[in-house]
Amino acid sequence: MQRAAPQEFSRVLSSMCTEPHPAARDAAERFLATNPGDPETYQEVARLERRAVETLGEIADLSDPHGYVTSGGTEANVQAVRSARNRLRVEDPNVVVPESAHFSFTKAADVLGVELRRVPTDDDHRADVDAADAAVDDDTVLVVGVAGSTEFGRVDPIPELAAVAHDAGAFLHVDAAWGGFYLPFTDHEWSFAHAPVDSMTIDPHKSGRAAVPAGGVLFRERAGLDALAVDTPYLESTSQATLTGTRSGAGVAAAAAAMDALWPDGYRREYERVAELATWFAAELRERGFETADVDLPLVAASISEPVFERLREEGWRISRTESGELRVVCMPHVTREMLTAFLADVEAVHAAGPEACSLSGDVGDAR
Amino acid sequence: MQRAAPQEFSRVLSSMCTEPHPAARDAAERFLATNPGDPETYQEVARLERRAVETLGEIADLSDPHGYVTSGGTEANVQAVRSARNRLRVEDPNVVVPESAHFSFTKAADVLGVELRRVPTDDDHRADVDAADAAVDDDTVLVVGVAGSTEFGRVDPIPELAAVAHDAGAFLHVDAAWGGFYLPFTDHEWSFAHAPVDSMTIDPHKSGRAAVPAGGVLFRERAGLDALAVDTPYLESTSQATLTGTRSGAGVAAAAAAMDALWPDGYRREYERVAELATWFAAELRERGFETADVDLPLVAASISEPVFERLREEGWRISRTESGELRVVCMPHVTREMLTAFLADVEAVHAAGPEACSLSGDVGDAR
Repeated sequence: MQRAAPQEFSRVLSSMCTEPHPAARDAAERFLATNPGDPETYQEVARLERRAVETLGEIADLSDPHGYVTSGGTEANVQAVRSARNRLRVEDPNVVVPESAHFSFTKAADVLGVELRRVPTDDDHRADVDAADAAVDDDTVLVVGVAGSTEFGRVDPIPELAAVAHDAGAFLHVDAAWGGFYLPFTDHEWSFAHAPVDSMTIDPHKSGRAAVPAGGVLFRERAGLDALAVDTPYLESTSQATLTGTRSGAGVAAAAAAMDALWPDGYRREYERVAELATWFAAELRERGFETADVDLPLVAASISEPVFERLREEGWRISRTESGELRVVCMPHVTREMLTAFLADVEAVHAAGPEACSLSGDVGDAR
Repeated sequence: MQRAAPQEFSRVLSSMCTEPHPAARDAAERFLATNPGDPETYQEVARLERRAVETLGEIADLSDPHGYVTSGGTEANVQAVRSARNRLRVEDPNVVVPESAHFSFTKAADVLGVELRRVPTDDDHRADVDAADAAVDDDTVLVVGVAGSTEFGRVDPIPELAAVAHDAGAFLHVDAAWGGFYLPFTDHEWSFAHAPVDSMTIDPHKSGRAAVPAGGVLFRERAGLDALAVDTPYLESTSQATLTGTRSGAGVAAAAAAMDALWPDGYRREYERVAELATWFAAELRERGFETADVDLPLVAASISEPVFERLREEGWRISRTESGELRVVCMPHVTREMLTAFLADVEAVHAAGPEACSLSGDVGDAR
């Protein structure tokens, strides 16, 4: 069960979700009928949530973390923006994000009524610090850096972005929703220890192998979480900082169980496996004439033509593209060399089927 | 398994969540690792979500429903407010809710930057229509009526509130998060057929016996849902109307399975059982000297003194109080006559233990 991908995932290459770890699945099933949104009624799952937040803090180098297990990265990002907006209370708040930021920030901007200022990335798809610096002003409440971008797996210059944010009197948020369980085993500077990061998104249900829904949001200061609280008249607990009300005990228990089982050694082994897998897969694609972006975190972006992409989808592959059209393959825990070998065989079959299918397209930036 | 409450729920009287139906639990376990937020990758659960929304429409008398399975009632209420705000685009939007409205509207107001106007309820804890009429103005985007209130189980005069809303150029939202699976078997006017309701919250994971997280939001018009959509660059689906991104396939599959198993006859039988149970329990409390509010939907509110309440919590009962201090017992599917008999025995034992524990307090309004 550990390695053999079950049916549902055998052709999924596009998702940042994955097959839960067996311990996470077991915990999810046991806590399916609990509600961490009502901690006085469901006390055991509330205890597990505190444990999950402690471990997320360890992973992100934050010794006294304030946060909770969200429904996912979108809720975590929305809440980080909301907290900054509520703490700074400027007239026309704006948030500065790199172009590579997840679309949840677009959603956050609409929901929360803040202006979103998207600034360019460099040739390697990382946030341009000068552009961020030019975009901030007195109404900026938050600057966002991505640590493991959705489309290219890139890590923004977090210490430099933190300096930009704090010079402008704003907070600095790191979106490590997907990257957070890989980054501790890399040389990247991304954590609360590497820079004066104020808040972070880090999702157990992505590379952490919890069951959906289990995202995570962390704040360095208690005030970050407190800025989200509303009163809860009929619950015996007195306030609630979450975006949702009733929440999934399954996700919370699965997050705690997965991190208990895997942090740190299991996650390190998994990172080493997928890092090697991604490097191998990119090389195999290049041998077949594709251009690929440099591989950093275990995500491969490669030029692909529309007809080839569509034919591969017809073959049942669950694949997706970046905004600029590259195929993106996310090397999640359920993705194996066997799966990717089968995928490459289908790529060759599609190419063999007709010349028009062979044309490659798309700009992958710093390609090699 | 059907009736015997498992350990986790054997003393839970405060929650509006419950033990999932066996078919719902089974479906949740099968779809634990899917993400309806990515419908092109996880197609089977996307199909189940369309079926769940169709059935919610049947229950709420809406033949062509537009909506989705939310994380719960809070997300559904936030989205209804957001949709109204986005559709009407006034300068300083406000939302008119009765005092009895769930605290998720307070959260929605903070998140969305709208003014919340709470208007009084009448002696029976139902929204006062004249007060709502006095509160609306040109900047009102939404009026809310509650169909099954959290604290007293009351149903507001929905047709009258709809008239107030529409006369003011606003939308009318019904919060039937808990009541929606009971109301079809009552004489109340609450549904899309009874009044020109624009949107509704109706949660399968409450009385519908789905697994958490499975709330529901419905819009009469396509434009209601469309007002929530943001673009999703890297997903093969092109936009997303949900508040969260990754979502629980377990909740969606459980909602579809529970409604398949129980609508309409199973829900009718369950309603008849809990309605009788609540009436019986309220009478038993009155025999023991408690004042109780009239029972409408299956929720019993009774005066209780602080010491008695605290002693019962020490005995392990998961109970909670209204904002004004009444004990509230929610007769959910896991609540049985045996549980309530054991609770009444503990009430008597607490009273016998000391005279100070016998003092009753709290105003239950239209008590009998």
